[in-house]
Amino acid sequence: MTENSRKQTCDDIADSLQKIRSDHPLIHNITNYVVMNFTANALLALGASPVMAHAPEEVEEMTGLASALVINIGTLSSPWVASMRKALEAARKRQIPIVLDPVGAGATKFRTDTALSFLERATVTVLRGNASEILALAGESGKTKGVDSARTTSEARLSAAKLAARYGITVAVTGAVDFITDGAREAEIANGHPLMGRITGTGCSASAITGAFCAAAPDAFRAAAGALVVFGIAGEIAGQSAPGPGTFQPLLLDALYTLGEEAIRNRTRLRLS
Amino acid sequence: MTENSRKQTCDDIADSLQKIRSDHPLIHNITNYVVMNFTANALLALGASPVMAHAPEEVEEMTGLASALVINIGTLSSPWVASMRKALEAARKRQIPIVLDPVGAGATKFRTDTALSFLERATVTVLRGNASEILALAGESGKTKGVDSARTTSEARLSAAKLAARYGITVAVTGAVDFITDGAREAEIANGHPLMGRITGTGCSASAITGAFCAAAPDAFRAAAGALVVFGIAGEIAGQSAPGPGTFQPLLLDALYTLGEEAIRNRTRLRLS
Amino acid sequence: MTENSRKQTCDDIADSLQKIRSDHPLIHNITNYVVMNFTANALLALGASPVMAHAPEEVEEMTGLASALVINIGTLSSPWVASMRKALEAARKRQIPIVLDPVGAGATKFRTDTALSFLERATVTVLRGNASEILALAGESGKTKGVDSARTTSEARLSAAKLAARYGITVAVTGAVDFITDGAREAEIANGHPLMGRITGTGCSASAITGAFCAAAPDAFRAAAGALVVFGIAGEIAGQSAPGPGTFQPLLLDALYTLGEEAIRNRTRLRLS
Repeated sequence: MTENSRKQTCDDIADSLQKIRSDHPLIHNITNYVVMNFTANALLALGASPVMAHAPEEVEEMTGLASALVINIGTLSSPWVASMRKALEAARKRQIPIVLDPVGAGATKFRTDTALSFLERATVTVLRGNASEILALAGESGKTKGVDSARTTSEARLSAAKLAARYGITVAVTGAVDFITDGAREAEIANGHPLMGRITGTGCSASAITGAFCAAAPDAFRAAAGALVVFGIAGEIAGQSAPGPGTFQPLLLDALYTLGEEAIRNRTRLRLS
Repeated sequence: MTENSRKQTCDDIADSLQKIRSDHPLIHNITNYVVMNFTANALLALGASPVMAHAPEEVEEMTGLASALVINIGTLSSPWVASMRKALEAARKRQIPIVLDPVGAGATKFRTDTALSFLERATVTVLRGNASEILALAGESGKTKGVDSARTTSEARLSAAKLAARYGITVAVTGAVDFITDGAREAEIANGHPLMGRITGTGCSASAITGAFCAAAPDAFRAAAGALVVFGIAGEIAGQSAPGPGTFQPLLLDALYTLGEEAIRNRTRLRLS
Repeated sequence: MTENSRKQTCDDIADSLQKIRSDHPLIHNITNYVVMNFTANALLALGASPVMAHAPEEVEEMTGLASALVINIGTLSSPWVASMRKALEAARKRQIPIVLDPVGAGATKFRTDTALSFLERATVTVLRGNASEILALAGESGKTKGVDSARTTSEARLSAAKLAARYGITVAVTGAVDFITDGAREAEIANGHPLMGRITGTGCSASAITGAFCAAAPDAFRAAAGALVVFGIAGEIAGQSAPGPGTFQPLLLDALYTLGEEAIRNRTRLRLS
């Protein structure tokens, strides 16, 4: 990346963040019980306005108010899957961005099948998962250990490219180094901190934040990259002063709230190709 | 308010807080998934004893043990609404205080209708919502943005008075300045901190804490005022040292745990009329 | 305990902790909504790999991947009880350790009956509850106040022994002083901090951590003792610098993450008999 294109990229990310902070886009999340609180707080810290709603009576109406839909299958069950379908269909009709987080795909058939059925029927905008989940969805053995990845993102590059091509979507694989592709473009992001893997819900929050960035920027590939850069930088800032994962979590939210243009300019570690 | 009546009000609030801390009243919450943890921790920090139970098999029995019932529709669904009805009926029979938090009323018909049906059938003691929710329940356009308010509390004064008169209840509208009315009396509370709007569950916790104060003081109007003063002061104390919403949350719980008579005497910003 | 046997015990606990940190055993939790996030974070901080899954379509498959199963009835409902039964059966067949946390047993008949039915049908390894819950399950009046204990652990010693004998299990009663028995052996643990009772989910996390220690050590009695010593020490370390329950929670997670052999050697307050 030339110095100019790097500057442009950082400016774009800062602009999207600014837009989220001024517009407070409503992000409709149907997500898992474990991370609902942290996800809502991550979106609020970023500047977005989160809402969680899963009842069949209201999901379509709530999606109808939202600027993006984030579907996360971390504690899925049949009634919730039915509501997710309704919300996905409502989002598709309104053409708002859809982020799918296939938590635990590869660990159980129910999760793999559910995630694949969403990819096949809906117009997902961004699929964000860890390496094991992306491998599993591409038909490779991901060896998903519960909801944790047993693989590195580089092992999932081909699978990500395959899924991007098959469904015409952007695929983001997160890990020590994140990998994003929309079939035509590729990005690698080296931002982040090891403690992000020692609290629950960082992947889920990355997906939710990707939803907020998609609401602020029309190009899903760039939106996903911006989200992961900002989240990774927030992790780095939190990691500078956190002695462990407990204090890391509130400091990560503080960093999402305070980080600005300068941190983005100085810390972004993004390689586009 | 004269200096004497102000002193009396602060003493009353401190007495209620002391009573909660010595009696540990059991507060039965049927609330939303997003805020359950924070709500339980807020009640524990205050000195109350929280319990969450929603199964039709046990809600009546659990309400039968409680000193107050708090109903919150933040992630409602039909089975939960049915359990809420059972708990409301059990609370009505035992004549324990009932607090209703109509999260997202105005955003979807399901939420508005559910909240109204609870107001119509049960003997709610305190209705606590944001301005958009209170406007929506009074039949005005609240323009609820998901679960966030698009209106100021002063815009909802008439609606609050209307609901207080219609249902014979106390209505508390929270925001930058809180407004409380029971039809005959009105209170304005200017305590609080802007970061309270940047973490999820502060409104929900305010409702739960109102339940604890109702268990400690027979006058619902004064109980609601005491709860919002104490919660607002806790927010101010937390806001003094929190650089962002992440660290603000644990500091708010610490302040609920430590704040005493002196903070109440020095910081209460309550106007009665 | 002689100086030598004390040293041996501390070494065993440190070895189990080290094994958890190197093996990252997958712990399958079917637990309550209130504490899911904190439980997952406690397991992650300790070094284990948590997963939450409750759908009938996948519980058996998920239990099939796990090194221990932790069942917690804190917000139970009939569909969840059915899934818990499936998971218990899968765990029994695979002979992986099972920890049961009977949250609120004694408060409602539904909870008491459910917990007893699990004890009767499954091969529970460790039952971990507060004094009220253990008394209630042994048929005594536990006077459970919602989910909080109204009794001290010493009042529940006989009940614990009775349950240990009846079901051939290890019973751990936690409180200011923890009491553990497997019928033949008894242990008392005086580690811990009063603030552990002022945040929600410490009991639930103690159960989950017991699951992780059971995955690391074959002797359930010793595993339970190790888990409660380590969790208690983490509480003591957190309590040294936390001014209240809000900051205590992240500091407790930090301590679980950082505490090592030296803290175990210096702080363990365990009496075996």
